[in-house]
Amino acid sequence: MNVYADNAATTKMRADALAAYVETAETLYGNPSSLHTAGQDAKTLLEDCRARIAAVLGAKPKEIYFTSGGSEADNQAILSAAHLGKLRGKMKIVSTAIEHHAVLHTLNKLKKEGYEIVLLPVGSDGIVRLSDVEAALDDNTCLVSVMFANNEIGTLQPVEEIGKLCRERKILFHTDAVQAVGHTAVNVGTIGCDYLALSAHKFGGPKGVGALYARTGAPLYSLIEGGAQERGKRAGTEDLPAVRAMTVALEGSVAALPETEKKLTAMRDRLIEGLEKVPHCALNGDRTKRLAGNVSFCFEGIEGESLLLLLDDRGIRASSGSACTSGSLDPSHVLLAIGRVHDVAHGSLRLTLGADNTMEEVEYMIREIPEVIAYLRNMSPVWRDLQEGRRTFIL
Amino acid sequence: MNVYADNAATTKMRADALAAYVETAETLYGNPSSLHTAGQDAKTLLEDCRARIAAVLGAKPKEIYFTSGGSEADNQAILSAAHLGKLRGKMKIVSTAIEHHAVLHTLNKLKKEGYEIVLLPVGSDGIVRLSDVEAALDDNTCLVSVMFANNEIGTLQPVEEIGKLCRERKILFHTDAVQAVGHTAVNVGTIGCDYLALSAHKFGGPKGVGALYARTGAPLYSLIEGGAQERGKRAGTEDLPAVRAMTVALEGSVAALPETEKKLTAMRDRLIEGLEKVPHCALNGDRTKRLAGNVSFCFEGIEGESLLLLLDDRGIRASSGSACTSGSLDPSHVLLAIGRVHDVAHGSLRLTLGADNTMEEVEYMIREIPEVIAYLRNMSPVWRDLQEGRRTFIL
Repeated sequence: MNVYADNAATTKMRADALAAYVETAETLYGNPSSLHTAGQDAKTLLEDCRARIAAVLGAKPKEIYFTSGGSEADNQAILSAAHLGKLRGKMKIVSTAIEHHAVLHTLNKLKKEGYEIVLLPVGSDGIVRLSDVEAALDDNTCLVSVMFANNEIGTLQPVEEIGKLCRERKILFHTDAVQAVGHTAVNVGTIGCDYLALSAHKFGGPKGVGALYARTGAPLYSLIEGGAQERGKRAGTEDLPAVRAMTVALEGSVAALPETEKKLTAMRDRLIEGLEKVPHCALNGDRTKRLAGNVSFCFEGIEGESLLLLLDDRGIRASSGSACTSGSLDPSHVLLAIGRVHDVAHGSLRLTLGADNTMEEVEYMIREIPEVIAYLRNMSPVWRDLQEGRRTFIL
Repeated sequence: MNVYADNAATTKMRADALAAYVETAETLYGNPSSLHTAGQDAKTLLEDCRARIAAVLGAKPKEIYFTSGGSEADNQAILSAAHLGKLRGKMKIVSTAIEHHAVLHTLNKLKKEGYEIVLLPVGSDGIVRLSDVEAALDDNTCLVSVMFANNEIGTLQPVEEIGKLCRERKILFHTDAVQAVGHTAVNVGTIGCDYLALSAHKFGGPKGVGALYARTGAPLYSLIEGGAQERGKRAGTEDLPAVRAMTVALEGSVAALPETEKKLTAMRDRLIEGLEKVPHCALNGDRTKRLAGNVSFCFEGIEGESLLLLLDDRGIRASSGSACTSGSLDPSHVLLAIGRVHDVAHGSLRLTLGADNTMEEVEYMIREIPEVIAYLRNMSPVWRDLQEGRRTFIL
């Protein structure tokens, strides 16, 4: 059996989205900046897509800027707020220790430029404390950046409450919603954010396209200079086939949300229930305040990479944490942030389910994964040390 | 008859490229950063595409970085060279007055940061003088950026000779080859450039994807921070379907080049011959040192936008200059640079042919365009003034 359980890394493009891509590429290939019919028809469709995406998010059409993906959107939001902050003499940015690297590395660049970067801790549940956010905010703070849902452990952050704290203090608030959009209800008005980043390939849309919501009045500076596309804020010929496919995927995902979330929650809970029976393991992140499709475990005495490769042999496509940092030998910064020690953090497994997964696949994983873990532990000197008391079990 | 004669703005995706996109999206949707089979198969194809694009350009695979398009590639190349220049106390950049806005606006940003930006003039033929380039280079120069072929008038710049001047002086050289790649022979070794930007949708590939060639040893800094994709120089999940489609389009275009260039040259020359018969007009740019598919004229006494709209009514999709600047009332900076006065520059028409165009379409345009020009002139007070001697003809 082949089980694709790495939907947080990327999803397979929805059939309706791919069909929309093809139809657009074949029939509306004009450059939306061209004055002739081929260009203007493309422009009309582009603006239609913008309005439809805005409608899904509760935004105004002119607040939606198409980008090449979530990373670009995160970079542009943070750099824009930071730039205005500097002009106003406010150079402190508050974020969390569990953000995606598109946020953390951008903040690190700003740190080198003299900004004060405060990365708040999270609890063992993988959720930032509101009181910590509130305590960190001061007159020097130009931006708060807190993700909507974590990409490794799926925990949902209290973005509405953070949005309220920021609004009361007139501090800009960005939320990286790359893992959330299409997977749970996301409304910029409810969140009260100034910026929101999303990526199409996380919800059945194409890769290479995403969007940045920037509230009217929020500062926005170009990351890519050139033509006057996207109201002068993002140069480059618009990728209309991808934008239309993203729109179709977003509308389709969101329309199916009540059903999908219910189905995924049931599969997730069954998967957690099944894997919890493995001795010396722990679920990463809060049991319920997490994305419906996210299951993340640490298993003591094993090495995550070996686990992934053996699972792959059995047809299970899983991940240890974020795909973007695979190849790195450092343990996940997210798992360290929730208090896992290095050795334990290395024994992590992330299974992320999507609408295409089935309960049959879940049962298959519940049978296979404990077997593979037992096999690996059987060969592991660390496990022998644990069993024989030369090391102490943590989990 | 419908004639798409705006191939410099964008091209229709080749059927083989679109098929490659679809096949990749359906079968190789894994994230290339994932360790499992779905990810590694995607990674293998990604690196295969990189090697194939490198081979076409005469580069090494590791010198090719995938981007979201030509604008991003131009921005990254220029900002990278400028950053290193600043560290070394060399803050002068030499470019030309006819570059694309992705280059000019990036240089303008650098000017505000204190860089000295020298924009060399071009002759009335639309070509920069080597002696001007040579005279501008000094010990303070960190970068020369000269486009391979102009996007409005199609003129080919002496990039090989400029490359030689730069190499002799150890000055970095970037060429924006967005209009050239897939349309004429482009080899980074022959040019001797340190950076080269290309965009897939200009040669039958998808929109939203391009590449930056950066020679081994040339400085390269991230424009988009985040994951470790593209050897740590460009974050964001790789858009494999688009990359593969770009590869197929590039190989297909380049394989057909001898035939296409011959066919396009014949069509271009016939089109120029036909339009030259219109009284008081002038070809923009050198007669032969231009892209095989580019025809650009100024017609005195008419307004380019009206011309485009009437041609559109007759099925001819054309442009006045660059699509990226349409909507602006300013005349083209390129036409001003070759010495056209404002009024004349406003009466411009760009027809850019591609492999799909036919000689029958050319003959149709030769019949229709002079008719539309005569009609517009007949209504034009400026034309009446010219006819009755209250204004002097320039062309």
